[in-house]
Amino acid sequence: MKLKNVVIAALVAALSTAALAQSIGKPEDQIRWRQSAYLTMAWNMGRIKANIDGTYNKDQVIQAANVIQAIANSGMGILFQPGTDKGKGWKETRVKGEMFSDREGVGKVAKPYMEAANEMARVAAAGDLGAIKTQFGKLGETCKGCHDKFRKDE
Amino acid sequence: MKLKNVVIAALVAALSTAALAQSIGKPEDQIRWRQSAYLTMAWNMGRIKANIDGTYNKDQVIQAANVIQAIANSGMGILFQPGTDKGKGWKETRVKGEMFSDREGVGKVAKPYMEAANEMARVAAAGDLGAIKTQFGKLGETCKGCHDKFRKDE
Repeated sequence: MKLKNVVIAALVAALSTAALAQSIGKPEDQIRWRQSAYLTMAWNMGRIKANIDGTYNKDQVIQAANVIQAIANSGMGILFQPGTDKGKGWKETRVKGEMFSDREGVGKVAKPYMEAANEMARVAAAGDLGAIKTQFGKLGETCKGCHDKFRKDE
Repeated sequence: MKLKNVVIAALVAALSTAALAQSIGKPEDQIRWRQSAYLTMAWNMGRIKANIDGTYNKDQVIQAANVIQAIANSGMGILFQPGTDKGKGWKETRVKGEMFSDREGVGKVAKPYMEAANEMARVAAAGDLGAIKTQFGKLGETCKGCHDKFRKDE
């Protein structure tokens, strides 16, 4: 076995172990879990927006930002296993094939999104509404960055 | 206006403001959001279990426990507005009417669940697999406590 093949075999084995320990589930489970996690974030984005547009409640914004931060840092990439580019969870997945082929592009949108989510939680805890508004806009841009590139229109 | 009525009017106004700031959405949104949040927790409970039963990965357990903690502390009670005892989000809600009539009973199951979720995140961060296993069992019991009382069987 050539060294290159040994390395690949080792990587595949490592990935399989990681996937096993993650309880990645069947393709339809993966799709349903990621749809649920995204909608949970969307609900909480809506809550922050309602606090910016309406009556500001510090605790609510903290609660919402913490949920978004935790999901953003949850390693959801594991739910995009090969074979989940098509299929139905709660509904048909809207993911584009590029999500599975363009790993570098995924990294380019994932990193700023995770950083923005961490900063959103920090700003929410600090409680300055102006800063919350600014950071909410930045976070929304990172969501859009991924949607534009890797999600089909409805 | 009698004092009692003034107090009730003030409480209703406060609740409406809180509900508005929360972006509580239409009944079907509330049901879909809570189904998504519960399934996101279920996915992460499964991940912790897979780490206990299979190969333990400290980071994965932390990620999963943080998601559960954030959702447990997110004030999801707001998604159980009157009129959401029946209806369809992703699917027909399984909530029992008692969830809306027995507020004291809800508090009795909600408090230990939130405490157990906070402790789960603390124990995950500490990284002692034995303690993780024990706390996972305790947290699961608090989930079951609510399901048994307030969720219909499928």
